[in-house]
Amino acid sequence: METLAVGVTALELVAVFVAALSGGLAAVRKKFDMFGVLVLAWVCGLGGGILRDVLIGDTPPVGISSWTLVAAAVGAGLVTCVLHPGLARLRRSVIVLDAAALGLFVVQGTTKSLELGAGPLPSAVVGVLTGVGGGVLRDMLVGEVPMIFADRQLYASPAILGAGTVAALWSADLWSWWMGIVVAVLVLGFRLVSLWRGWLFPHVGVGWTGRWGRESGSMDT
Amino acid sequence: METLAVGVTALELVAVFVAALSGGLAAVRKKFDMFGVLVLAWVCGLGGGILRDVLIGDTPPVGISSWTLVAAAVGAGLVTCVLHPGLARLRRSVIVLDAAALGLFVVQGTTKSLELGAGPLPSAVVGVLTGVGGGVLRDMLVGEVPMIFADRQLYASPAILGAGTVAALWSADLWSWWMGIVVAVLVLGFRLVSLWRGWLFPHVGVGWTGRWGRESGSMDT
Amino acid sequence: METLAVGVTALELVAVFVAALSGGLAAVRKKFDMFGVLVLAWVCGLGGGILRDVLIGDTPPVGISSWTLVAAAVGAGLVTCVLHPGLARLRRSVIVLDAAALGLFVVQGTTKSLELGAGPLPSAVVGVLTGVGGGVLRDMLVGEVPMIFADRQLYASPAILGAGTVAALWSADLWSWWMGIVVAVLVLGFRLVSLWRGWLFPHVGVGWTGRWGRESGSMDT
Repeated sequence: METLAVGVTALELVAVFVAALSGGLAAVRKKFDMFGVLVLAWVCGLGGGILRDVLIGDTPPVGISSWTLVAAAVGAGLVTCVLHPGLARLRRSVIVLDAAALGLFVVQGTTKSLELGAGPLPSAVVGVLTGVGGGVLRDMLVGEVPMIFADRQLYASPAILGAGTVAALWSADLWSWWMGIVVAVLVLGFRLVSLWRGWLFPHVGVGWTGRWGRESGSMDT
Repeated sequence: METLAVGVTALELVAVFVAALSGGLAAVRKKFDMFGVLVLAWVCGLGGGILRDVLIGDTPPVGISSWTLVAAAVGAGLVTCVLHPGLARLRRSVIVLDAAALGLFVVQGTTKSLELGAGPLPSAVVGVLTGVGGGVLRDMLVGEVPMIFADRQLYASPAILGAGTVAALWSADLWSWWMGIVVAVLVLGFRLVSLWRGWLFPHVGVGWTGRWGRESGSMDT
Repeated sequence: METLAVGVTALELVAVFVAALSGGLAAVRKKFDMFGVLVLAWVCGLGGGILRDVLIGDTPPVGISSWTLVAAAVGAGLVTCVLHPGLARLRRSVIVLDAAALGLFVVQGTTKSLELGAGPLPSAVVGVLTGVGGGVLRDMLVGEVPMIFADRQLYASPAILGAGTVAALWSADLWSWWMGIVVAVLVLGFRLVSLWRGWLFPHVGVGWTGRWGRESGSMDT
């Protein structure tokens, strides 16, 4: 278990680092100055966990109190400052790593909340928020509508399924630590398969009103 | 009192449902996908209460931990997905129900905070936030300046008067449960009368500098 | 010490008032109505402290529970409503007072967090947030990208140095109350000198990639 814990911590640092890169790159694209790049990296890497900790009352959040986590996020910001022209070429690897980060954040956010006694529903919600919250905050800080609400990609869906699965297994007293790895891998796999196959979430109006056979022509008012 | 509690809970679910509809509709208007519509409905129906609970330290907030409340908000999102072309025609009813939700949220937010021992000023502030916070978060998430700050309508004013009245009565030891109903109805009435009579909040510069008799021509710098 | 405490409280009210003015003016510029001006003044004067208190779990935050602080912020909003045409002419004084407010907020935010036992890193982070958070929230509420991320001015840098110094001295058991005054004055001085000399933060890509001697032509992707 000791080795596992070390492994999970290392994984978590990698996940924060990768998520923070996407914040740093968004800031570079918006021509932020170096302070802005570092802050966006921090928000994107650790913002989801900060929301989680504030919502479950575990203050101060680890996103501001853990030296290693803050160093991983700010370090990613510094790397973005120096290497951002090259990072664009790594787009494919970043997408895979980001999907892995999503799986890890969701499992870890949900279990942390359950361990603190927060019940299955709030734990699943903060688990999802841990996974997707950083990206939402990033988009709001650069003045854009959160991508996750409108791009129809299956990004939140694997997060919701993963967090729901963890909360359900826990409530049924069936949880053991290795299931976390399985669920995280499933979230990663679901995300990657959906990207690979080009699965998209239904537009509101199309998929739904179609089932009732009306409004098929004009679905947006 | 038991019957009253059940009645209040039912009322609260209706209030959350109605408030969530406005979030869902805003998301449809912005062409969000289905996940975005559900999230906006949740934020708009329960975001004010989540702000309240975070500010008074009652975590996890009921907006993520209560099955019935979350179901009411997400249910409104699903209804918006299916029925949004028809909801536009219900605009008038939605305005009345939204004013009722405002009254209920303000009274319930203020009293919850007072019951947790938070003092009259913070309780009035979180009472107002409970009423108007969801709409502010909704507007920020769809990338718009919060309507409530600029549309000059009397929406926050009834909320402030209602929350102030509750906090004052409570501080003077004059509170009893039926006053909550009276104040909620007064907030609803004030809101509807202001809409009916077309009352508007003064533009900064006009109403005010006029009283000092200057800057009557050009009021905005 | 009693006199000092009174002096600090008076200073804090002035700092909140000055910071709130900048929120009120931003709201007037965006043609918000009077309610919007008052809310923006409150958010800008007290939002940083509210973030601090939520992050360190000291709820309800003083930004909603202290009569004098709320009165100072809302009072600044009222003053903005009445006097905004004249306030533009005071720009120079406002900049100096705002730099003083920054120094005070940073020192007071960091020490408050340390006193509550939050450790040097989270305390420095919330100290910086206390100083700059109100302005970030102001910019988000008026629909703009936070100025502090992109204007290259040295505003966050003095805050970070100040908060880091306080946290380091505290951790080394070298802290005594008068150092707070020294650090606040240093933050103020650093900010003013940087404005006077026109110091700017490096653009990402220029200052950094130059040191590795590449990408000197096109730095933004």
